Amino acid sequence: MIVGILGAGQLARMIALAGYPLGLKFIFLDPSKDSCATGLGEHLHGAYDDPKLLQQLAQRADVVTYEFENVPADVAAFLASHTQVHPSPKALAVAQDRLTEKTFFNTIDIPTPLYAPVDSLEELEYVMPTIGWPAILKSRTQGYDGKGQSMLKSATDLAGAWKLLDGVPAIVEAFVPFDREISIIAARNAAGAVVFYPLSENLHRGGILRVAQSRVGDPMQQQAETYVLCLLEALDYVGVLALELFEVNGHLMANEFAPRVHNSGHWTIEGAETSQFENHLRAILNLPLGSTAAVGKSAMVNFIGGLPDSAEIASIAQAHLHLYDKAPRKSRKVAHATARTETPEQLAGIVGQLVALANKVDNT
Amino acid sequence: MIVGILGAGQLARMIALAGYPLGLKFIFLDPSKDSCATGLGEHLHGAYDDPKLLQQLAQRADVVTYEFENVPADVAAFLASHTQVHPSPKALAVAQDRLTEKTFFNTIDIPTPLYAPVDSLEELEYVMPTIGWPAILKSRTQGYDGKGQSMLKSATDLAGAWKLLDGVPAIVEAFVPFDREISIIAARNAAGAVVFYPLSENLHRGGILRVAQSRVGDPMQQQAETYVLCLLEALDYVGVLALELFEVNGHLMANEFAPRVHNSGHWTIEGAETSQFENHLRAILNLPLGSTAAVGKSAMVNFIGGLPDSAEIASIAQAHLHLYDKAPRKSRKVAHATARTETPEQLAGIVGQLVALANKVDNT
Repeated sequence: MIVGILGAGQLARMIALAGYPLGLKFIFLDPSKDSCATGLGEHLHGAYDDPKLLQQLAQRADVVTYEFENVPADVAAFLASHTQVHPSPKALAVAQDRLTEKTFFNTIDIPTPLYAPVDSLEELEYVMPTIGWPAILKSRTQGYDGKGQSMLKSATDLAGAWKLLDGVPAIVEAFVPFDREISIIAARNAAGAVVFYPLSENLHRGGILRVAQSRVGDPMQQQAETYVLCLLEALDYVGVLALELFEVNGHLMANEFAPRVHNSGHWTIEGAETSQFENHLRAILNLPLGSTAAVGKSAMVNFIGGLPDSAEIASIAQAHLHLYDKAPRKSRKVAHATARTETPEQLAGIVGQLVALANKVDNT
Repeated sequence: MIVGILGAGQLARMIALAGYPLGLKFIFLDPSKDSCATGLGEHLHGAYDDPKLLQQLAQRADVVTYEFENVPADVAAFLASHTQVHPSPKALAVAQDRLTEKTFFNTIDIPTPLYAPVDSLEELEYVMPTIGWPAILKSRTQGYDGKGQSMLKSATDLAGAWKLLDGVPAIVEAFVPFDREISIIAARNAAGAVVFYPLSENLHRGGILRVAQSRVGDPMQQQAETYVLCLLEALDYVGVLALELFEVNGHLMANEFAPRVHNSGHWTIEGAETSQFENHLRAILNLPLGSTAAVGKSAMVNFIGGLPDSAEIASIAQAHLHLYDKAPRKSRKVAHATARTETPEQLAGIVGQLVALANKVDNT
């Protein structure tokens, strides 16, 4: 079986590493010459919308998937008309546009922060009394890791924030004074079977995920499962999906979802019976899904902009290094390390060490 | 860093899969066109003693290692004179010849079964009264998975067994009425640090390993560690090494060692904090060695000659599939599956299921 992946970054890399033991081969389509997954399969080198390369991918792959959600709609449609594609173009379309996404959440009774579409500075000024302060102005499409976002604290911020957007369609969202940011990762296969991972509790800084920790037995698990199950079924979704949520006063609100494997689930490589990467493959190949049971207590620390020293990580007995083979560059995720321990106290100790190592080389 | 590997079979494949997260790249030298590791790195396609390819390998790899011990001595010497090679040509030389190996064990006070070199039928007849019955006649070199071996039960077996050897130098060994076959896998890095895995208890049938089970807290652990440490230090060994032992009446005797990662250690991928494959890489790169602590109870079942059904394995919650991308062929190891559980009872249940699946497709 050959799996085609649009994108050859670290997510594609980790999908491929999980797929070899299942006997799979991989073809990646990616415009970058030295993408980090290219050693792990064949690399079709060119634009994501290159018709010839897409045709090759569709012809040769038994199933095609993505490592990012900003796949042009016509590309997804072309692939879907020529081969099996998971997740579906519909899931991509919903995830790509923050306005569609939020509206979709509300349609299926998943609460979100207050939001409004804005296409001009006048509209922004008009809706702010309803949205309330503070709020966040975001481009409707293309943003990730906090890019294309501005915090609005008072009326004096509006003009500047609007100018930064440079005329792209936008959405303004009420800022939620959340107690925690969490995410739930779930997988659904074509037969409709669904599995849920234990919640991840996530720590962002500067809009970038820094630490994700598995939370076995979290009191919010059930509510999160209910929401993500709704979403998976409403989208007739196949594959792994990550739903990011805010916890506020014991209630959950959806922030966004990613129709793909997710940074907050990297701890599942060591910390779950079956990793999110393997379960994504199982789902899109319609194999029985693997157990998501936690293996010990675990957490993941991202290395942003600077590479960790392999020997330093290797000297920590319960740490596991994951380099992405990416050159360090400002704000770029270049590696992560997982800690897996028996007790929460041990975990806290190792996470502390890893965070210190990540801060030492941080460049954001 | 680029790691060169002589051989591109399943061991090289699993070394490479463990090496990507450490940021490594791989070059394999292997005569077979469609070897199972070739998707995971560059493939130099040709004979192991092809001077041009060896030169390429030596020039481009930062360190070279092997997935099998029958590397011609001049090949090992050539590589060692041009680049870093681990394990050393000396370790290979000792492991390649059963006579040298047994003698080496005895030199460093590791007990073995009685043995004697035999170069003619007359010599065989002469030594048998000393060796005793039953005994095993083996070629001194090149044997694996029971190939080139004959059981000698009485004097009438000698002529036939000798004829089968076809004149190659041989060794006759007393057959040990062992209580158990076990192996200990250990790693030593260039700095001299050593780690030991929990013992593997191994079950062979038809000379081929079928099941290996991790034995945490086994009463023989200490004695096995003492022997393998002796061996590692006597060879000034760098890398992972597997020492196969017989247990007889509470004592251990060495059968043989493999200067490489070993089939009886495949359970370490899921069942140990750091796998034997990652620790082999850490050792030859002189990184700190990883913890060998067991993660749960685990065991591995080999699939010989026939491929498992992926969906059947995937439907067993605590089983993990490892396909080698090899076409099934009589007596060929094509896959293994690991079971990892909380309790020995759960383990026994899943191993039973996996053995049944392996027997269903067995072709030996």
